[in-house]
Amino acid sequence: MPNPPRIVVDAMGGDFGPRINVPAAVTAAERGVDIILVGDEDAIRAELDKTRAPDRDRNLSIDIVHAPEVVGMEEKPSDALRKKKDSSIMVCCRLVKQGRADGLVSAGNSGATVAAAMFTIGRIRGVERPALAGIMPTEKDPIVLIDVGANVDSKPFHLAQYGLMADVLATHVLRIPRPRVGLLSIGEEEGKGNTVTKEAFDLLKGSHLNFIGNVEGRDIFTGEVNVIVCDGFVGNVALKVSEGVAKSFGKILKGELKRDFISKLGTLFLLPTLTRFARTLDYAEYGGAPLLGVKGSTIVCHGASNVKAITSAIMMGARYVRNKANDHIIELLEAHGDLSRYGRSGRKNKKSESS
Amino acid sequence: MPNPPRIVVDAMGGDFGPRINVPAAVTAAERGVDIILVGDEDAIRAELDKTRAPDRDRNLSIDIVHAPEVVGMEEKPSDALRKKKDSSIMVCCRLVKQGRADGLVSAGNSGATVAAAMFTIGRIRGVERPALAGIMPTEKDPIVLIDVGANVDSKPFHLAQYGLMADVLATHVLRIPRPRVGLLSIGEEEGKGNTVTKEAFDLLKGSHLNFIGNVEGRDIFTGEVNVIVCDGFVGNVALKVSEGVAKSFGKILKGELKRDFISKLGTLFLLPTLTRFARTLDYAEYGGAPLLGVKGSTIVCHGASNVKAITSAIMMGARYVRNKANDHIIELLEAHGDLSRYGRSGRKNKKSESS
Repeated sequence: MPNPPRIVVDAMGGDFGPRINVPAAVTAAERGVDIILVGDEDAIRAELDKTRAPDRDRNLSIDIVHAPEVVGMEEKPSDALRKKKDSSIMVCCRLVKQGRADGLVSAGNSGATVAAAMFTIGRIRGVERPALAGIMPTEKDPIVLIDVGANVDSKPFHLAQYGLMADVLATHVLRIPRPRVGLLSIGEEEGKGNTVTKEAFDLLKGSHLNFIGNVEGRDIFTGEVNVIVCDGFVGNVALKVSEGVAKSFGKILKGELKRDFISKLGTLFLLPTLTRFARTLDYAEYGGAPLLGVKGSTIVCHGASNVKAITSAIMMGARYVRNKANDHIIELLEAHGDLSRYGRSGRKNKKSESS
Repeated sequence: MPNPPRIVVDAMGGDFGPRINVPAAVTAAERGVDIILVGDEDAIRAELDKTRAPDRDRNLSIDIVHAPEVVGMEEKPSDALRKKKDSSIMVCCRLVKQGRADGLVSAGNSGATVAAAMFTIGRIRGVERPALAGIMPTEKDPIVLIDVGANVDSKPFHLAQYGLMADVLATHVLRIPRPRVGLLSIGEEEGKGNTVTKEAFDLLKGSHLNFIGNVEGRDIFTGEVNVIVCDGFVGNVALKVSEGVAKSFGKILKGELKRDFISKLGTLFLLPTLTRFARTLDYAEYGGAPLLGVKGSTIVCHGASNVKAITSAIMMGARYVRNKANDHIIELLEAHGDLSRYGRSGRKNKKSESS
């Protein structure tokens, strides 16, 4: 049997630091993942002591690597990376770069995590721009929205690469067979969109993917499509809009439910129902957004992540490594030759072939 | 006292045609708006007969203008406008162009309505690209999101114009004093965004607007900002994402509420609460999206609009005319000189002045 994947966890990341990351790492270790915790050694040890009650203190594979600095959630990524060479996130990236770990998980400053992973660990062969794959629950299968913010001003060729990378994630990590891939646009007909999406449409149509054409914002939550491709500006807006609506909904509903005695009584009866409802919308289910296109596996988590979310992210990172997702990405990119050249010279021919 | 505003209503527009549009027009007429109904004369008369019960048959100002053709909801706008010169939407636009009406309301094919209004009625002085202003309910004041789909590939100068036009809508039609204007981006800090938004930021910062800087997708529903400026591709995605989330929420909640006896009992107790909740999220409150930058007032409604939505749209169109919103737009644009030239030559100076 091969060695278990070894995942390095940024213990200082997120709004709660070791208090959340350490228990999550312990749970993942109990599920068979080798763990390296990076950050303030004393704080990590203190948290480990609290977490591992004597009866649970089995022979878990958890190492600690001390990192003297932390990148704050509000720090400007470029400054932070230049000034804090020994921050927990930089140490995490170096461990992956040196091959001492297979992947990393961080709920710290997202911009810094993305930048550190790109520049320290490096891109995999053939990828021009790594992209963040947001994974969201729907009424059916989860959906992958790519890119949710690593890149702005993407070119058509980048969008096509995002589609190929997310197809691998959906197939080999989320286990969705032959995922349906859509291009986010403002109308379903082929001619709809902006300059960039119209050209990306042709590239995706000519690819080996199960491309279903343009999809719209409202399709994100139906589960009819498994991968939605878009520029990082658009994807980030889409992600934050959906967070915003969900939050408002919750707030309004909560307010209404507290209004009077009858409402309270109704709430009591509905409690199990509302709890199930909340679980359906629980983003913690998938834990974090994989940064696709970088060597190893990098999972970027929300700063407000709880133990469940971090645990899920570690397990997803381990599955990513175990299923050799990066090898599949390299393979799929190679099968599509030089997409950028194809996009410029071969597009018209491809189009007339397939229609 | 000045004449009441005269609004022409596309009786054939939307999924339900005269059955929805005629009763809505009658209600608006009862509230003091002069109405012209455009479409199949027999169908309109039949619906009017049904709607105006004898006791309500007062001296309402409702005229009918026959239009022999209808643009289908799925027709390609450019084809429809070329081939169907006497469609109800084209006749509506010509009546406004000729000064026989002050504004129009249509729930028909949105693309065709926008194109017909732009090209038949024409733009107001100084506007390069008319834009669709989506109005959405929030926990506080309504919010104006502009553009929600009239234009893609907007330039920084266009975004600044959208902001100026929406400021007038918010101030003079929605009666929000000194509206807070934000630029939709992917981070609140000044340097965040893509090439276009970064330049638009400087233009808006140098304007007379109450510009609060970048806002994010999640800010759409908080009510902390009154106008959010974005390209039509991004705005359309944002709008449809929020529709999608709301719909999924409703569906999941409905399913949960039907699950078992206890849930049903709870639902019964919660019915008034859930009804209030639904009303908070009722888009029909504002009826439709004004197309800003075109002469007269053009309100574009959702195809699935009900009587309440169309009535609200007519009343908003009338208020738009009565409060001379277009005059205010012309004035505000003039006060900002040539934004495009300012954007290229004066930007750096402006920036150093204000920081």
